[in-house]
Amino acid sequence: MRAYGERSPYETTERVIRELTASPGTGSSRTPHQDLFGTITPSALHFERHHSGVPGIDPATHELLIHGLVDRPLVLTMDDVRRFPSFSRTYFLECGGNSIGEQSGNTQPDVQKSHGLLSCTEWTGVSLALVLREVGLKPEAKWMIAEGADAGRMARSIPIEKVLDDALLVYGQNGEALRPEQGYPLRLLLPGWEGNTNVKWLHRLQFTAEPAMSAKETAYYTELGKDGKAQIFTFVMEARSVITRPSGGQRLAPGGGFHEITGLAWTGKGKITRVEVSVDGGKAWADAVLQEPVLSLAVARFRFPWMWDGKPAVIQSRCTDETGFLQPTHDELIAVRGLNSGYHYNAIKPWQVSADGSVTHV
Amino acid sequence: MRAYGERSPYETTERVIRELTASPGTGSSRTPHQDLFGTITPSALHFERHHSGVPGIDPATHELLIHGLVDRPLVLTMDDVRRFPSFSRTYFLECGGNSIGEQSGNTQPDVQKSHGLLSCTEWTGVSLALVLREVGLKPEAKWMIAEGADAGRMARSIPIEKVLDDALLVYGQNGEALRPEQGYPLRLLLPGWEGNTNVKWLHRLQFTAEPAMSAKETAYYTELGKDGKAQIFTFVMEARSVITRPSGGQRLAPGGGFHEITGLAWTGKGKITRVEVSVDGGKAWADAVLQEPVLSLAVARFRFPWMWDGKPAVIQSRCTDETGFLQPTHDELIAVRGLNSGYHYNAIKPWQVSADGSVTHV
Repeated sequence: MRAYGERSPYETTERVIRELTASPGTGSSRTPHQDLFGTITPSALHFERHHSGVPGIDPATHELLIHGLVDRPLVLTMDDVRRFPSFSRTYFLECGGNSIGEQSGNTQPDVQKSHGLLSCTEWTGVSLALVLREVGLKPEAKWMIAEGADAGRMARSIPIEKVLDDALLVYGQNGEALRPEQGYPLRLLLPGWEGNTNVKWLHRLQFTAEPAMSAKETAYYTELGKDGKAQIFTFVMEARSVITRPSGGQRLAPGGGFHEITGLAWTGKGKITRVEVSVDGGKAWADAVLQEPVLSLAVARFRFPWMWDGKPAVIQSRCTDETGFLQPTHDELIAVRGLNSGYHYNAIKPWQVSADGSVTHV
Repeated sequence: MRAYGERSPYETTERVIRELTASPGTGSSRTPHQDLFGTITPSALHFERHHSGVPGIDPATHELLIHGLVDRPLVLTMDDVRRFPSFSRTYFLECGGNSIGEQSGNTQPDVQKSHGLLSCTEWTGVSLALVLREVGLKPEAKWMIAEGADAGRMARSIPIEKVLDDALLVYGQNGEALRPEQGYPLRLLLPGWEGNTNVKWLHRLQFTAEPAMSAKETAYYTELGKDGKAQIFTFVMEARSVITRPSGGQRLAPGGGFHEITGLAWTGKGKITRVEVSVDGGKAWADAVLQEPVLSLAVARFRFPWMWDGKPAVIQSRCTDETGFLQPTHDELIAVRGLNSGYHYNAIKPWQVSADGSVTHV
């Protein structure tokens, strides 16, 4: 018996780490969806995306400053935050740059590399709208600038409507305290919105009339269109799905036979209502089964029984959400968006199953 | 960044280990509910209860034998098990001996010691009924004897009706492989039934006309009534609830003020429909809020806003499930069951809040 458990030494699936600069701890690590089950991502395998390393914060000294266009500026300790009524819900979190190379054709060979900046966990915290009753927002407060306590003081501007709708100050994840790489001891959680806006190691909320135009909302996390103009503040992660098994790098026993096709679907606009699977390169589509309960703003696990005939096949999934949005093909997506950007890429991802059972990206 | 994450060094909550015999790894470790959030128990803090240690099993060589009153006996490898259509769902798991001392008045000082043999995780596996189509049950098969690969070959007899209803062969927990202490690589999962029947390290299923009358269903996990007769095969865990915060051993700031009362409720008979909280020693009761979604056979998180007046108070919760069953008081329970046993104890647990803010068991 162990006071805090560990996995079996036979289990070796890991996050794939990609350091982006010479600055230690700056880059990403990706969730190994090809090896995972169900809808909950283990906290130890939740994706990471850091811009200035991971600060080691003592929760006993951590403070959240709330100031700017408020009647009563306030400093909250972690004990203060935990005194508020709490709230728990399962939400997906996806980096705005998930699959960023796929749009321009720099495709990745496996689902971890292509879709690994997505995870889904049960978060616990307090409604930010409730906390803000303590400070009193002035009518001219239209934006909230959320700043983290990482070395670079990463900051994003959030419209007041989202702040007052469903934003959370989160301190719990999958039942225990947030992990350091998820913002310990406190992060902002904006359900359905691009990961970067969910500011980690949250230590300051400033209410303003205008956005900050910070580096991460101007130089990064903007979308350069076909006409050379960039869209900024593209917050919502739109509907997408991907087959996680069989997926790139895996190998089926050759000769055909029964295989379950399974994967994940999610949308920042509410609930996934339908996932379809094609096993013939996109000519015919049939409904997959969604694992109940399908939760709003969480990943849905889909499953599709496939009797493989042993011949080469292209398998893929597409989803529909409650707004009626149907996940586009790659060609449909670039016809609208062009090739200049790559944030918020959400096209269908086909996998090639060869006669020898190997699975590769198309 | 780390390939497999760990929690902050400031987070130190742990399972409490109780070794029951001189045999290493035999005993229990309990989930620290006083420190946890939401409904998902982290796998690292899921309770343990072992009767003969934790075997270290290589999944590449593990086999499940299905035999007895079947048409086609079968040996399945883990690869075979994973080829079947999969299924994921969040279920609570509770040891039949959770709170075993409370019935006779041997009360525990905190919720971890009194209620820590309960946890709740998302399980993934395959429907056992589906697997059994491959072997073909004979009509005279009325019981399934499930045996684990631990040193003692722990075995339990399961009625065929439960086997064919919702029993699962489980290999995934909270998104990744089962932890060793939860039966890696394969366990039986019987939703809502006492933990001991959910046989870990599962390596044999024998179908029989009669139960095995194994040690753990005769000498243990039976309930000795007031008349000196023992009930056996009391499988279902009935409805219960407990306040996890504030709970024994915790301390509120003295002087009163707002505190959220929160806890867990669960029932082996389906859904929790209502949780009530009393802050006056059981005279008045008011409805708590249940965190949505409330899932069948999973824990429900309840919350109740409490403006403490700073005076001594006795706080407690009681739940109702979809069968209409209302959780009893300690006195009501022992009036029916007497004091000889202690398995399946599910009475209301009151906590005393003193004027100095300390919380103790009543």
